[in-house]
Amino acid sequence: MKAIIVTIGDEILIGQIVDTNSAYIAKALDRVGVQTHEILSVSDDKQDILNTLEKLQNQFDLVVITGGLGPTKDDITKKTICEYFDDVLVENEIVLKHVTELIEGIYKRAITQINKDQALVPSKCEVLFNKMGTAPGMWMKKEDTVYISLPGVPYEMKYLIDNEVIPKIVKEYNRPYIVHKTILTYGLGESLVAERIENWENNLPEFIRLAYLPSPGRVRLRLTARGENKAILETAIEANIHTLSKIIGDIIVGFDEDETIEVVVGRLLLQRQKTLATAESCTGGKIAQMLTSVAGASNYFRGSVVSYATDTKISVLGVNADTIEKHSVVSAEVAKEMALGIQKLMQTDYAIATTGNAGPTKGNADAELGTVFIALATPNEVFCEEFSFGQPREKVIDRTANKAFELLQKEILKNVH
Amino acid sequence: MKAIIVTIGDEILIGQIVDTNSAYIAKALDRVGVQTHEILSVSDDKQDILNTLEKLQNQFDLVVITGGLGPTKDDITKKTICEYFDDVLVENEIVLKHVTELIEGIYKRAITQINKDQALVPSKCEVLFNKMGTAPGMWMKKEDTVYISLPGVPYEMKYLIDNEVIPKIVKEYNRPYIVHKTILTYGLGESLVAERIENWENNLPEFIRLAYLPSPGRVRLRLTARGENKAILETAIEANIHTLSKIIGDIIVGFDEDETIEVVVGRLLLQRQKTLATAESCTGGKIAQMLTSVAGASNYFRGSVVSYATDTKISVLGVNADTIEKHSVVSAEVAKEMALGIQKLMQTDYAIATTGNAGPTKGNADAELGTVFIALATPNEVFCEEFSFGQPREKVIDRTANKAFELLQKEILKNVH
Repeated sequence: MKAIIVTIGDEILIGQIVDTNSAYIAKALDRVGVQTHEILSVSDDKQDILNTLEKLQNQFDLVVITGGLGPTKDDITKKTICEYFDDVLVENEIVLKHVTELIEGIYKRAITQINKDQALVPSKCEVLFNKMGTAPGMWMKKEDTVYISLPGVPYEMKYLIDNEVIPKIVKEYNRPYIVHKTILTYGLGESLVAERIENWENNLPEFIRLAYLPSPGRVRLRLTARGENKAILETAIEANIHTLSKIIGDIIVGFDEDETIEVVVGRLLLQRQKTLATAESCTGGKIAQMLTSVAGASNYFRGSVVSYATDTKISVLGVNADTIEKHSVVSAEVAKEMALGIQKLMQTDYAIATTGNAGPTKGNADAELGTVFIALATPNEVFCEEFSFGQPREKVIDRTANKAFELLQKEILKNVH
Repeated sequence: MKAIIVTIGDEILIGQIVDTNSAYIAKALDRVGVQTHEILSVSDDKQDILNTLEKLQNQFDLVVITGGLGPTKDDITKKTICEYFDDVLVENEIVLKHVTELIEGIYKRAITQINKDQALVPSKCEVLFNKMGTAPGMWMKKEDTVYISLPGVPYEMKYLIDNEVIPKIVKEYNRPYIVHKTILTYGLGESLVAERIENWENNLPEFIRLAYLPSPGRVRLRLTARGENKAILETAIEANIHTLSKIIGDIIVGFDEDETIEVVVGRLLLQRQKTLATAESCTGGKIAQMLTSVAGASNYFRGSVVSYATDTKISVLGVNADTIEKHSVVSAEVAKEMALGIQKLMQTDYAIATTGNAGPTKGNADAELGTVFIALATPNEVFCEEFSFGQPREKVIDRTANKAFELLQKEILKNVH
């Protein structure tokens, strides 16, 4: 099955927002063996949308459209699709009941005509029930192509993909198998990794493709196998990874495709029944926010003190004023005292502390822009590492948070219990 | 000028990475009056790329391509473009010198053949010098279409866009004017905003378009005017915003294109020389993280306690154990004590506290999924509001954070100094 994802909206074409929906949809389709051949963003201009719908017909089996289903005048996707299908809009009773309940029951206000119009759908469409919002999803077929229209609000789109679109595809279509495996390597650049695995790469079977996904300090290698027999694909992938591990075992750190570091670390803490707290200066709560984005984090994360003002470090975390005076607030000594302070305050096994100069200006700190200290308190000791993350501010904060998780992960794994 | 942005790479089509490059390029083009009509992602398959290049020829003035310029075997963009132009790859001396300096001088290792091959470029291309990396940008013309190929690594792409591509476009082409203005509103949903401004919207001139960009708790209204005379466009936009302000002045919080509520609130605090702290339970540090994403936040934000564990609320924030016992941890009473506790602990003028059940499971709290209490301590009082934000978890956290900023903003604006 050949799919294309189409996002509709001027806000994408002028760069006002980043399209994150397409990645979510592409991943969901990929998991069930539907290949996304293209991702396309077009303007919310009626003629552009009509031209696009026509151009894609019979070129793709599936056209998954997001965006432009809101209640306002600039949301023209529904009307335009209706026109393309030579159809009329009719009121759907189930949707109207749901919209009414949502507005009157949950949001506690009177329903308006604009809200009610959300329940209008093309008469030929199969409604995909959107429990999360007022805009229904739609499934319509024209000749060989299925058009699926979803709202652009991410959590509504995700709900519909997971609960309506994917189950329907799985039920109604036969699909080939796709097996991906990603190898995470750390410490070598792309070209050096490529040199080391050149022979191995040249000997990969035809049905396995290799891609390099480099980012600063690390390279992910992605293997993709496609075919009719799942067992054969998996065996071949495993065998090739086994060979690869013999060649670059020293730089391989993991195999999980898209697990975030906060999920990995959370699971490690949970397995070992250990607890964590953070004392954050330059990261400003970013580490706590990443930890608590994971459901169930309360089982291992006890809390954080974001000590943005210097005297908070003293009064709340118990950092010694002399230490700050002597070494400056951006120093290994202060980071270590912060880590010990929060570990004691929240009574945890592990504690992370960050202090640094994220920029964009030097402020009153002595430290260079991008200088960061990350301290880690364990049940047995406290240590600190210094980093230079340059600029901009956003990158410094992100890299500090990621590096802190990485240090913690290594530390936990060192102690086999 | 009509542009299309093309990103090349399977990692986008299987959803492994989100394409953030296109938004950056689209915004840069838009600023100089080049309109991006489409954004397209295609596979790094040679035939797919060739088909795409051919399909776009003479349909667009500019084709901006990113990705597939790395040194490894799966990077085929350069070779494929070369083939499309019936050209041959030749070594570029300036690029080779730069690559050698980068590898040997900065990275301090021996240069390899794979590195040297980065200096090969199609003989007909104009090289766009990439100071940030080893892959040069390329500018090539075929009939009416200019093809620009850039590396996919974001900071290399950004460097080339800012320093090579945009200056060259500005120098060599005449472009119309585009004026955007975004109005940031808080507190009303999309449909209610639409109802209030219906008349105004219907009376907008032909050359001004309005778009609604909703996200939890807020709606951005974007006006876009396009034409030959910049002064006329700006005057018309200003006049219409003036009228709009009379209609919905009570919910407008800012006009800056990318201004977020945390920037707006930060400015208000700074202007009034007031300070803020947060005590976060269900938001898990999200509010602190938003506050500290703004440069200069240390001038008004003193810090946060993320009290994820119940006893942290007692031991660090000084919430009364009886209050928790009597009203449960998710209650207005606890939220108010948290706000007063952090206000005292960090000695601030204002304090925000959140407690709620973000889900996905009910846990041991009595509160319904999505129930949230937000308390605000001011120099004179403390009050609390209750909200039902439903599910999923991500939405509850986002809406709580946004609502907290909104409450604080209203409170500050009430006290005219």
